[in-house]
Amino acid sequence: MVMKEFELIERLTAGLPAHPAVLTGAGDDCAVLDLGAPDALTLFKTDAVVEGIHFTADCPPEKIGFKALARCLSDLAAMGGTPVAALVTLGLKRDFDPAFVEAIYSGMNALATRVGMAIAGGETTTNPERLLISISMIGSVPRGMQVLRSGAKPGDAIFVTGELGGSLQGRHLEFEPRLAEGRWLAGNFKIHAMMDLSDGLAGDLRHILKGSGVGAELLGSAIPISRAARLHARAESSAKPPLLAALTDGEDFELLFTLPSRDAVGLLDAWKGQFPGVKLSCIGKITSRQGITLRDKHGMRQLNADGYVHFS
Amino acid sequence: MVMKEFELIERLTAGLPAHPAVLTGAGDDCAVLDLGAPDALTLFKTDAVVEGIHFTADCPPEKIGFKALARCLSDLAAMGGTPVAALVTLGLKRDFDPAFVEAIYSGMNALATRVGMAIAGGETTTNPERLLISISMIGSVPRGMQVLRSGAKPGDAIFVTGELGGSLQGRHLEFEPRLAEGRWLAGNFKIHAMMDLSDGLAGDLRHILKGSGVGAELLGSAIPISRAARLHARAESSAKPPLLAALTDGEDFELLFTLPSRDAVGLLDAWKGQFPGVKLSCIGKITSRQGITLRDKHGMRQLNADGYVHFS
Repeated sequence: MVMKEFELIERLTAGLPAHPAVLTGAGDDCAVLDLGAPDALTLFKTDAVVEGIHFTADCPPEKIGFKALARCLSDLAAMGGTPVAALVTLGLKRDFDPAFVEAIYSGMNALATRVGMAIAGGETTTNPERLLISISMIGSVPRGMQVLRSGAKPGDAIFVTGELGGSLQGRHLEFEPRLAEGRWLAGNFKIHAMMDLSDGLAGDLRHILKGSGVGAELLGSAIPISRAARLHARAESSAKPPLLAALTDGEDFELLFTLPSRDAVGLLDAWKGQFPGVKLSCIGKITSRQGITLRDKHGMRQLNADGYVHFS
Repeated sequence: MVMKEFELIERLTAGLPAHPAVLTGAGDDCAVLDLGAPDALTLFKTDAVVEGIHFTADCPPEKIGFKALARCLSDLAAMGGTPVAALVTLGLKRDFDPAFVEAIYSGMNALATRVGMAIAGGETTTNPERLLISISMIGSVPRGMQVLRSGAKPGDAIFVTGELGGSLQGRHLEFEPRLAEGRWLAGNFKIHAMMDLSDGLAGDLRHILKGSGVGAELLGSAIPISRAARLHARAESSAKPPLLAALTDGEDFELLFTLPSRDAVGLLDAWKGQFPGVKLSCIGKITSRQGITLRDKHGMRQLNADGYVHFS
């Protein structure tokens, strides 16, 4: 997302109408609502994908449906939530092929079935020039267990699941939303802040830092770089260096979270037993000094707001 | 909506993944969820408006925002519900004017404040050729009080609020969602079936009839025709006759409902005291014979699936 949009969203969300049931509104992965259930809070999220922006016109329709739903699931995962139901709004081109649309639903339905949630209906409208899919989702989280972006504290260790960068080489159409991981983390550890990575580590981490009023120091050599990012950098001379790709590529849909550093070793041990197939990396620490500092073989560098690296 | 879309939706919604919390899924005004609150059920709805389809490019932005939110509120009203929170997904053109977008939010926020609901956040994305706004909404309804489309019974009287037809002359941008009316009806009368009118009486009534396995007989002279539809018919020789406009124009956003005919007179009396400024008309009755028959000065006529009148 470009900065113009971030700034606009900030202005737009400054004075939104409130309601006592809304515990957390704009600015986190999901809105959190108290609808009166004794043990649970409700998560509420919406997200859209657009042809030519989030997928190409020649993308297999099953994967388009998968991605549209999985992006929303990733946001629920980042709150420690469990999905319940989604509604699907389709903006269809005038000459749409019904078989293509049915294949989109196949991809969504397969994922919904696998994670145990309903597709509870939706809407179609005309969007003449390009396919657009907007998903809205309701999830559930045990009362008090929701993890926000705003609780990071100086001294916290910063963790990230999986490997980062190069997602557009294919992974963005078949990533695994970290639902089980998010629930397990929220249920078993004192996670101070968590979010999912959609715009790139360097940009997204800023949301946690801003929400929490803190800064961060990252260790370059600890940042898990995907094989796709490495291969892409080797194959194309114009591609970003792998570390920069891992910091800024976006569409990773991994979990980024912080917890007290004294719990870091225990977490790493328990994680290996619980999720042996998923990498977990401690990539740095939360600082009271604002901004993001990257420590690597070039020394200390600042990451700027666009996620790009400038030498200091 | 064209028939191709109706047929597609029917195929798509035939085998959707389910979840025990979803009591009513695709095919009604809103999905109905049981999220565990002792006294209330949750309503869940999504709806989109697109530039050039639901509003023109020169439409005042406050009215675009108003309409986007009001359409969803109308669906909640038709279940007897009360709105709690909405999320706003904006598909913005590349050269969007931030002031224009802020004015859209002004229109939405004013309406949200007036009906006592939150705007709990949202998402922006790029939709290069035209503005698109997708609203998703959560509402609440007392447990057991939700009114579906599927409960109409032969002998029921059919009612409609307000006046129909000619909405595109201006009313579609400033209609009043019938929230208070829907709640009052659901709370005080045995409403068998209810929905809001968005595609035109002749087409929308079919959803109640199909959902309930019944037919209907309408009395032409009882159908409330708007002044806008009459004036438009007089001003333009190519315009629909007023009764046909009232039957098929769409975008009325009035409530259509049925209840036992023995309660009809009591309802009309009580309504006048409760909503003196809003017309309520008994327009016909539910029959066991399928289809819609219209009785007027030309005799008995059938309404076909497109809403157009054919002489029988």
